[in-house]
Amino acid sequence: MPPHRRIDVVFDSVKRLQRIGATANLLNLLQKQHPADLAEVFSELPARERRSLFDTLLERNSRLAMQAISELEPEVRVPLLVEYPADELARFFQEVPSDDAAAVIDDLPDTLSASVLEVMRRKESDEVQHLLDHPDQTAGRIMNPDVFALSEDLTAGEAIAALQQSRDVEMVFYLYVVDERRHLVGVISLRRLLLVSPETSLKRIMTADLTTARVTTDQEEVAQLVASYNLLAIPVVDDENKLVGVITVDDVIDVIKDEATEDIYRMAGVSSDEHIFTSARESLRKRLPWLGVNLVTAILAALVVRLFQSTIDQVVALAAFMTIVASMGGNAATQTLTVIVRGIALGELTWSNSRKALVKEAMVGIGNGTILGFVGACFAWWVVGNPYFGGILALAMVINLLIAAVAATLIPIALRALRIDPALASSVFITTLTDVFGFFAFLGLATLFIEYLV
Amino acid sequence: MPPHRRIDVVFDSVKRLQRIGATANLLNLLQKQHPADLAEVFSELPARERRSLFDTLLERNSRLAMQAISELEPEVRVPLLVEYPADELARFFQEVPSDDAAAVIDDLPDTLSASVLEVMRRKESDEVQHLLDHPDQTAGRIMNPDVFALSEDLTAGEAIAALQQSRDVEMVFYLYVVDERRHLVGVISLRRLLLVSPETSLKRIMTADLTTARVTTDQEEVAQLVASYNLLAIPVVDDENKLVGVITVDDVIDVIKDEATEDIYRMAGVSSDEHIFTSARESLRKRLPWLGVNLVTAILAALVVRLFQSTIDQVVALAAFMTIVASMGGNAATQTLTVIVRGIALGELTWSNSRKALVKEAMVGIGNGTILGFVGACFAWWVVGNPYFGGILALAMVINLLIAAVAATLIPIALRALRIDPALASSVFITTLTDVFGFFAFLGLATLFIEYLV
Repeated sequence: MPPHRRIDVVFDSVKRLQRIGATANLLNLLQKQHPADLAEVFSELPARERRSLFDTLLERNSRLAMQAISELEPEVRVPLLVEYPADELARFFQEVPSDDAAAVIDDLPDTLSASVLEVMRRKESDEVQHLLDHPDQTAGRIMNPDVFALSEDLTAGEAIAALQQSRDVEMVFYLYVVDERRHLVGVISLRRLLLVSPETSLKRIMTADLTTARVTTDQEEVAQLVASYNLLAIPVVDDENKLVGVITVDDVIDVIKDEATEDIYRMAGVSSDEHIFTSARESLRKRLPWLGVNLVTAILAALVVRLFQSTIDQVVALAAFMTIVASMGGNAATQTLTVIVRGIALGELTWSNSRKALVKEAMVGIGNGTILGFVGACFAWWVVGNPYFGGILALAMVINLLIAAVAATLIPIALRALRIDPALASSVFITTLTDVFGFFAFLGLATLFIEYLV
Repeated sequence: MPPHRRIDVVFDSVKRLQRIGATANLLNLLQKQHPADLAEVFSELPARERRSLFDTLLERNSRLAMQAISELEPEVRVPLLVEYPADELARFFQEVPSDDAAAVIDDLPDTLSASVLEVMRRKESDEVQHLLDHPDQTAGRIMNPDVFALSEDLTAGEAIAALQQSRDVEMVFYLYVVDERRHLVGVISLRRLLLVSPETSLKRIMTADLTTARVTTDQEEVAQLVASYNLLAIPVVDDENKLVGVITVDDVIDVIKDEATEDIYRMAGVSSDEHIFTSARESLRKRLPWLGVNLVTAILAALVVRLFQSTIDQVVALAAFMTIVASMGGNAATQTLTVIVRGIALGELTWSNSRKALVKEAMVGIGNGTILGFVGACFAWWVVGNPYFGGILALAMVINLLIAAVAATLIPIALRALRIDPALASSVFITTLTDVFGFFAFLGLATLFIEYLV
């Protein structure tokens, strides 16, 4: 989507070649594709064709097949892999960088991942195990432990020679410089290395003031560092400032996308690990709890309405107009919530300026409430034929939009202070809150001034 | 936020040094900061202090001041710049890369930006003007025209020599290779250049199969290319495949963040150019139209309720329970909408699999509707004391959750087909739609079976 992407053409060819059983041509086509494109082809194929295509590719070019596996969503790749015995899997995992291997192995059933790690070559299995020992979503978990580092005592010429002999190090563009005990002491860009004479010592040309992440740093914080300082990679150090890994900008892009998805999903009451083709059964299971919470809060709102049932009994038009107050409050709250949650995620909302944000949102709430309340009041007056009815509607809207603005600002800020993800202040909660307050304000005012309404 | 970031310490020091007028110390501190950090300090200062700090820094280190300006939001930087005469501004803009200059100049008032471009040195002003000639959000607009390219006839040794003499080219890590008429013919990584002997011809070691963007390519598509192929930069070519610029991964990160913000905002009915500290007046102006649309649709929903006013008059409990049907539909729709819109944005939902998505969402809708409807029905039976009342509530919930799922899947897909941003199918519209259908289903069924309810 757009309709005619290059990948769609590849997809159609794959299906055709599979159907006519032209395996040689099929493999030829697959091997010309980027792993990311292969992953997309796999995702779109029906389960049976996917299985057969994957088996074919794995047999011929297991490296490429495993690279494609790294790019797939867990619910697509796990079923493909679990069919293979642990010793074959172990061999396949040795073909990909250990950070990618760790991410995939982590999704496998526990017994299978344990056997795979047991059979893998010692060095690789240790690396993967070491990554998996770090908590989820930390720098230590997503870093690549194969980092290219050189001793500070080398010269530029020796460094270039070392670089020429290095194999399998991921996307080198910074050379990290370490002391004799592997403490990180500086960084040199590849370009800088070219600009100096070969006998220059690294110590003289390195930048000692460099941005690092600790193994325990949250991946979102790592992404913010890389993004704000325009880095291509960030070195990861342990508690003693020893260099243990590197996170490259391509991994950071994945983190940024995942975190944005997570925020968008949470605000809408969707689990962050849900995916467009999560099975219907799984999606239902994941969404039901949120809707269950919503049912409870919606019942609460309904009970508020029931409190005022006798008022509605006297002025039945209230039933129609109370929905306007609630709906406006919900949408205004969603607007405020979105700006605040995104402001926190982008690091723009801080402690020092949160009061300013509150005052601003409150003013916007009162302003919108007044303008929209006036319009709504005129309409209600016209329909119901009673100016007081309109006045009560307007007043309830101002109150509800103010409450909406304050709640939608304070709740995410409070959650953040408690180190809970502010996106969990999802519109599910906020909109029911504004329902409850909207009904309460409107029907409460109507009860108070019932003599003007009947 | 977290409370004690390094930048907060800098911020406090800046305020203290400003207050006691210690300008030399202040400048010293500022010049040690990264432009991104300076931008954050500027954002958080009150307008007067910001102005004075910026003037101080600009006078001493205009390059750093302008780099910080590039990182600021438009509503913060424009007021800082408009105070300066055009000829001074022109001089300042010459200090930053032309893509950054173009982005800032574009935000200035038209007469000022025209005078600035007139006074700038010919080469820079042409470059900026050329960028601004490309439509917003295209590769041509955000690329850096200063791209490092070499003739295919050179050797590796000559290429290294050329690189050593180059100045002011942004973050070189790929060398682009062009023919005598500047057509892009290949790419070589800096690392590869180091690995071959100096007399090797570039033609022999370059990769001819490379991913490019056209000047007209949408920035979101550029970001998807860079992200899926793990690129550090992507060359931009014109209609004749001539190399005209490069987009680096740091710019792509900005695009990814902006596009995510835009999607999140649009879905909530917030303008994509709104920002956490947009003034209250401006925010009100930007949000009011969305809420105005919501008012109209909410009035529609209220009119649906009024249609059934005589039914409510007979069974007033309907007024309380109708809000449950509407609220559940709204939240279920938001869940589906979010998954679909994000799936489109991440390129996972395509033409070929959209039917599958529809079937899945419909099944989830029916499933959730049945389970939650059953719970809601039991509760309603218990409160109202009439099993038929509960049955009608359950049936209305199934119908409304099914409609919610189908609408929230089809509307964004249809918008995408019409080349309209699917995120515009914001929850504002969808939730009112589910309000209307929810009220209609519940009150309609109640009217149909009124004899069982009274």
